[in-house]
Amino acid sequence: MHKVYYPFPISDILELSEEESKHLNRVLRISEGDEVLVMNGVGVVARAKVIESHPKKTKLQIESRKEYPSRKDISLHIAMAPTKNIDRFENFLEKSTEIGIDHITPLLCERSERKVIKPERLQKVLVSAIKQSGQPFLPILREMTPFKEFVKNHPEGCIAFCENPEQSMPLLKAVKNHSDITILIGPEGDFSPEEVSFATMHGYKQITLGDSILRTETAGIFVCALINGIE
Amino acid sequence: MHKVYYPFPISDILELSEEESKHLNRVLRISEGDEVLVMNGVGVVARAKVIESHPKKTKLQIESRKEYPSRKDISLHIAMAPTKNIDRFENFLEKSTEIGIDHITPLLCERSERKVIKPERLQKVLVSAIKQSGQPFLPILREMTPFKEFVKNHPEGCIAFCENPEQSMPLLKAVKNHSDITILIGPEGDFSPEEVSFATMHGYKQITLGDSILRTETAGIFVCALINGIE
Repeated sequence: MHKVYYPFPISDILELSEEESKHLNRVLRISEGDEVLVMNGVGVVARAKVIESHPKKTKLQIESRKEYPSRKDISLHIAMAPTKNIDRFENFLEKSTEIGIDHITPLLCERSERKVIKPERLQKVLVSAIKQSGQPFLPILREMTPFKEFVKNHPEGCIAFCENPEQSMPLLKAVKNHSDITILIGPEGDFSPEEVSFATMHGYKQITLGDSILRTETAGIFVCALINGIE
Repeated sequence: MHKVYYPFPISDILELSEEESKHLNRVLRISEGDEVLVMNGVGVVARAKVIESHPKKTKLQIESRKEYPSRKDISLHIAMAPTKNIDRFENFLEKSTEIGIDHITPLLCERSERKVIKPERLQKVLVSAIKQSGQPFLPILREMTPFKEFVKNHPEGCIAFCENPEQSMPLLKAVKNHSDITILIGPEGDFSPEEVSFATMHGYKQITLGDSILRTETAGIFVCALINGIE
């Protein structure tokens, strides 16, 4: 069934945005009487019937709804330096949203190769991924934040660091019995030693993701899979 | 350190292929005396010194070598229907190689949207991913195989199927105590019910990857992360 994103409270009759209306009417050629699934991105997934198919203001009538209180028992926040090639960061956004993530913060690090992002474009990747996967919650994409500011505001968490594997513990051991999980993932050139000790001073644990040297976005997807897979 | 792929036995002096020579000499501007890491893709990773930098036949002298007997205690084989958009399948190849996989079989299913692949191009993605990640073993890319033929030749394994979640078990439960793991992942339109019962008849377990509907390539990456992460 086609899925529609409608980021507002879901009343019994809805009028869709011009963008969603056009997509349903022109691209998918939805007609009156057809059924669609409406997702508001904050836990409500509703079945609806199209009562007016119009390229600018398609109207729906809600037939039934399901409300999810939260995504999971665990809340996962990944703060990651966006990659130089933005496609790779978008790949992380898509995959992690499909698999399951709650908060994403683009991180500005000492060795960041990308210092600017386009939140509107990234937001579209997230919306498209919840439509694809049926995830009832849209991950919250926060604004680009300098490393130290982020760490100060989110004390305790894990920092994935390739060097000094002997000082690191495996991810799943580090997050055991935690329900609020924050993981930092560095840029292509990794975190600087100074950033790592700053995080350690603020209660962060150094973690290792194994022997393989994962690309930034692969590390993010890997973390997401493990955190969602352990339950 | 720059990594070189040399898919042959590693003697003390090596002459690299024209492709690798050109890359080192022209792109990376490696000169005599520089050090590189040589990987043969079957477990040997060696440090070498450039003794002649030449655009067609660069020569190396091996200084030390490390030999890995096998990738891990677990051997993972994913048989997956290549996606319509080949970039998505290549994304799976890249990510799964970085994270860790042993065998990959492109699967020809009833609902496959892509029936032809270019193995040479896909092989390059794998080589590039072991260079990136330092994985000492190149995954073995098998030829495109029809679903039933594959299942008959690989009895027992797991089939990831979105429907009938009540008849499925979680991946990690299904593979517990197995060291030889085969997982089937279907095309965009999923496996047909006939394929699922054929696999079940041949000793396959139906598995679920959770409530989220994962894209084909995301399912493959997710499986790979969980299998590598549990150890």
